[in-house]
Amino acid sequence: MTAAVLCVGTELVRGEIVNTNATWLCEQLTALRHEVVETLAVADDEKEIIAALTRLGQRYDLVISTGGLGPTTDDITSACVAKLLSVPLVRDEAGVAALKQRFVQAGRTFYESNIKQLDFPQGAHPLPNEVGTAPGFSVTIGKALAFFVPGVPAEMKPMFECSIRPQLASLVQGGEHQVRLKTFGMAEAAVGELLTGVEEQFAVTLGYRAHFPEIEVKVLARDASQSSAEERANGAARVVRERLGQIVFAEGDVTLAQSVGRLLSARGLTLGLAESCTGGLISHLVCERPASDYFLGSVVCYANQIKEQVLGVNPDLLRDKGAVSAEVAEQMALGARRVLGADVGLAVTGIAGPSGGSSEKPVGLVHYAVATPAGVMLSQTQFPRSRDQVRLHAAYSALMLVRRALG
Amino acid sequence: MTAAVLCVGTELVRGEIVNTNATWLCEQLTALRHEVVETLAVADDEKEIIAALTRLGQRYDLVISTGGLGPTTDDITSACVAKLLSVPLVRDEAGVAALKQRFVQAGRTFYESNIKQLDFPQGAHPLPNEVGTAPGFSVTIGKALAFFVPGVPAEMKPMFECSIRPQLASLVQGGEHQVRLKTFGMAEAAVGELLTGVEEQFAVTLGYRAHFPEIEVKVLARDASQSSAEERANGAARVVRERLGQIVFAEGDVTLAQSVGRLLSARGLTLGLAESCTGGLISHLVCERPASDYFLGSVVCYANQIKEQVLGVNPDLLRDKGAVSAEVAEQMALGARRVLGADVGLAVTGIAGPSGGSSEKPVGLVHYAVATPAGVMLSQTQFPRSRDQVRLHAAYSALMLVRRALG
Repeated sequence: MTAAVLCVGTELVRGEIVNTNATWLCEQLTALRHEVVETLAVADDEKEIIAALTRLGQRYDLVISTGGLGPTTDDITSACVAKLLSVPLVRDEAGVAALKQRFVQAGRTFYESNIKQLDFPQGAHPLPNEVGTAPGFSVTIGKALAFFVPGVPAEMKPMFECSIRPQLASLVQGGEHQVRLKTFGMAEAAVGELLTGVEEQFAVTLGYRAHFPEIEVKVLARDASQSSAEERANGAARVVRERLGQIVFAEGDVTLAQSVGRLLSARGLTLGLAESCTGGLISHLVCERPASDYFLGSVVCYANQIKEQVLGVNPDLLRDKGAVSAEVAEQMALGARRVLGADVGLAVTGIAGPSGGSSEKPVGLVHYAVATPAGVMLSQTQFPRSRDQVRLHAAYSALMLVRRALG
Repeated sequence: MTAAVLCVGTELVRGEIVNTNATWLCEQLTALRHEVVETLAVADDEKEIIAALTRLGQRYDLVISTGGLGPTTDDITSACVAKLLSVPLVRDEAGVAALKQRFVQAGRTFYESNIKQLDFPQGAHPLPNEVGTAPGFSVTIGKALAFFVPGVPAEMKPMFECSIRPQLASLVQGGEHQVRLKTFGMAEAAVGELLTGVEEQFAVTLGYRAHFPEIEVKVLARDASQSSAEERANGAARVVRERLGQIVFAEGDVTLAQSVGRLLSARGLTLGLAESCTGGLISHLVCERPASDYFLGSVVCYANQIKEQVLGVNPDLLRDKGAVSAEVAEQMALGARRVLGADVGLAVTGIAGPSGGSSEKPVGLVHYAVATPAGVMLSQTQFPRSRDQVRLHAAYSALMLVRRALG
């Protein structure tokens, strides 16, 4: 079953709001194994709405349209559908009575403009709206089964769940399974080269998504049954993991910080941080998900006086080697262990830019140290990009070092 | 000039990422007074990409396409354009040499798959990519001037700014000026009500953009000349500022943390943080822009033992009042001042959720304290949303408290 999502609203094509409805609907339809071929947004404009629906009805089995069902003059989707199908709009008088009743019960003023929302193209099947005032409806346009739902997400989503999902779930044959592997530390081109031949070997589709600084590898299998699709996707994912090795840090929606947290929790270890150039970013990434099992805290030592006075870094070392050095990183990591009472101390110091670099220590140079009960492990990177990118890359590199230190 | 935005990427039609590129491009084009009639997203599929480009080239004067320019096998936009135009792909050998040179200078490994990104449809005009490895290009398709840019926002946006905006700006007559005011602390509907009548009084257009937790108010004026447009937009912006008062924290691209930093720097004051539930987020927001003028550091005291041992919070107080209390917030702020040697200490403690709430102290309750040479100022918020939203709202509320404390 091929599908398209149409979102109606001038605010979308003017860039005034992000189209999260399209994303949500695509995600639901994909999970229900309908293949969304395109999503489209058009203004509240009769000519454009009719042109879009006509074209989508010729091409796809399923169309879901959001928006333009409300009470104001710019809400014209129902009228456009009626015109396109050459049928009149017919008022659902029972619906009007029920809506008035709801307003009375809620003690709200009923405005006559609400009545327009109960006008449906003749032959349409209404979809109830339990949350708001605009019902949806379904009709056939061309070869497509077309559903019309409100643009307000809080109304659209329950309507999809109650009235659309059950119909769609019953329409699709066969199985599909996708495995998503998250990587850090290798360019997209290099990851792609390492996976040459996997698509052919397993008859899967590989997709790549660069979400800086991660590269996600998606392994998608379709087959006659769900179980055979899963088997094939999982088989291919095993080979992908083998070929990519340590750069794979997690599967699905697990974050890098979470993957580190799981390794620490499994060993009963706590984590403390000493952050200079990352300025709290690692701590923030750790705390995005609940972390009190293993995370104690962080000393963000942006100024050198904090490195000395709070973390106990030797002032002579700061003067002789500079704040951005392996030696200071090591003392910061040991200081984080001691001051925060943590089993594992992780430290980062570097030059985020845009200024502060020199020929000897250029913007993008970052030193890392992780101190564990077993000793200290050091690393460094040289990644000359924008300030945001240097900092995010450094935060990821630091967390990857903890993974390495824990084996 | 009518325009369309095409976004290429299987991840978009599968609902795996929100299409913020389309929103951003629509916003830019609208501000440049091009009328975006539709936006479209299609999978990495030759047939669909060619069909979409053919159709858009017949209908519109301008097409901007994002995505599908990278090094992996699923990046096929350039090949589709060549096929559609019946021209070969031609390698930009000088571009390949320059790219290799960039890799050598950065000490990075050059992969052969990167070369594919320098293959352009014959006759295309390359658009340089200063950030990543995939250049864009422009060609004529049907009646449309078509631009092809990468899907990675950090590469797409600079390319638009450097290579596309100047071309598009020259196509439209008259003057236009927009003032963007950033606010925090009031709902969008309430902000809108406070500004009733401003549009009519100054003949400007007001736009609202909710970018959680900020509401941005855009004041747009168009006129025969640039100077008269600027005068009118600035006049209206002054009235908007007066009506909105303290919730306006910055103009343009200035961040809330930057606005706080400017107030501190102007007074020669330094800042130290004590963060519990925000877990380093405030520190991260502060360090997004260079901050060494005023920012010393932060103690992220996620565990209570850090509040006691590093910040010196009284253990009896932690036991009797709980970590989430005005009293503990106050001691944390005083501790941040003392331990970090800062003029201003800012502290946050709260319940970010999803668990850890009680009827007395529900998820979303956050206490704030700011300690200055003049004394301590306290506040609290109760904002029961998702963990991410509670934390971001708390970080903003905390920084707003510093603004208030500084007058």
